[in-house]
Amino acid sequence: MTVRLVLATRNPHKVQELEQILQATGLDVSLEPMPGSAPDVVEDGLTFSQNAAKKARSAAAATGLPAVADDSGLCVDALNGMPGVLSARWAGSGKDDLANLRLVLDQVSDVPDSHLGAQFVCAAALSVPGGPDTVVEGQVRGRLVREPRGEGGFGYDPIFLPDGSDRTTAEMAAEEKHAISHRGLAFRALVPVLRDLSAQGA
Amino acid sequence: MTVRLVLATRNPHKVQELEQILQATGLDVSLEPMPGSAPDVVEDGLTFSQNAAKKARSAAAATGLPAVADDSGLCVDALNGMPGVLSARWAGSGKDDLANLRLVLDQVSDVPDSHLGAQFVCAAALSVPGGPDTVVEGQVRGRLVREPRGEGGFGYDPIFLPDGSDRTTAEMAAEEKHAISHRGLAFRALVPVLRDLSAQGA
Repeated sequence: MTVRLVLATRNPHKVQELEQILQATGLDVSLEPMPGSAPDVVEDGLTFSQNAAKKARSAAAATGLPAVADDSGLCVDALNGMPGVLSARWAGSGKDDLANLRLVLDQVSDVPDSHLGAQFVCAAALSVPGGPDTVVEGQVRGRLVREPRGEGGFGYDPIFLPDGSDRTTAEMAAEEKHAISHRGLAFRALVPVLRDLSAQGA
Repeated sequence: MTVRLVLATRNPHKVQELEQILQATGLDVSLEPMPGSAPDVVEDGLTFSQNAAKKARSAAAATGLPAVADDSGLCVDALNGMPGVLSARWAGSGKDDLANLRLVLDQVSDVPDSHLGAQFVCAAALSVPGGPDTVVEGQVRGRLVREPRGEGGFGYDPIFLPDGSDRTTAEMAAEEKHAISHRGLAFRALVPVLRDLSAQGA
């Protein structure tokens, strides 16, 4: 039967991508927005998985429905894997995607081209009320470009060139990005668990 | 005999601290400022030691004199050891110490108090024209405070509380700071090599 599934995020870009990714799986799910009354979660985990699980659990507890959450970010080798879990607020609280990616580019401005390796990482969490939590992780390896390119995606997409591609993830069509992206990989890895949930008539 | 030693830095705070630290050792050295004509060094090393050695070598080559250089920074656990080698330009090029430490405080604003561990690291390099390079490292462990405290020191001193102290390194007198600081430890570790240099009549 159709699984009602709360998308535990208030980021409109993530809502859009999760809808596209999950609907493309053919799963029988009804995706529901996070209710305005659900509490805000302090994302103070030290890992993507901790934060994703915390967000999914909070939304499941608030709604009584299964909930999925995403925690994701850009991990730059020359920044020892940061911005990492701080990706959304790298330039400080209240700053936007452009300020964040500009700061990263500024920080690596003296880093040689040969050391611009990076990866996008996404932890996807599913929390079922009264049931177990599942957290999976997807990664896509690539490198930074020195100037933003492309209008698609969000966050650091304009400066991330996946391995094997000559276009940034912001220069790709949505389906093309999801086929290789950290978020696509992570949420597709949740499909078997969501299918079981559907079979159980959650 | 007196060793003429070039201080390979244009940072006036570092010049002052190196003068204080080296003069307190009792070594017979004549400290010389970096000549204006010496080339700027791109600090693109991946470690403090690489950058310090690069700066000392460049100054020794430009002047024909032994040169010492410092590369140092704040390594924050919750930032995977960053700002690290990017400490001086963490908030971007052309930003000042205050902007850098404010950004760090903003980045760790959601990090629990129990995870605010950090260390100051200093690599001290000595390069002798036609001779070997020596690089040593000093570290001081501590943790971040949430608001800047003290008027002494520079850089991240106002937000760094060394282990065993209830005052930040910006709240300490200079001699007291140098007794425990990463920079004091590193440059005092160079003393035996500088003493040999003096004995050889460099």
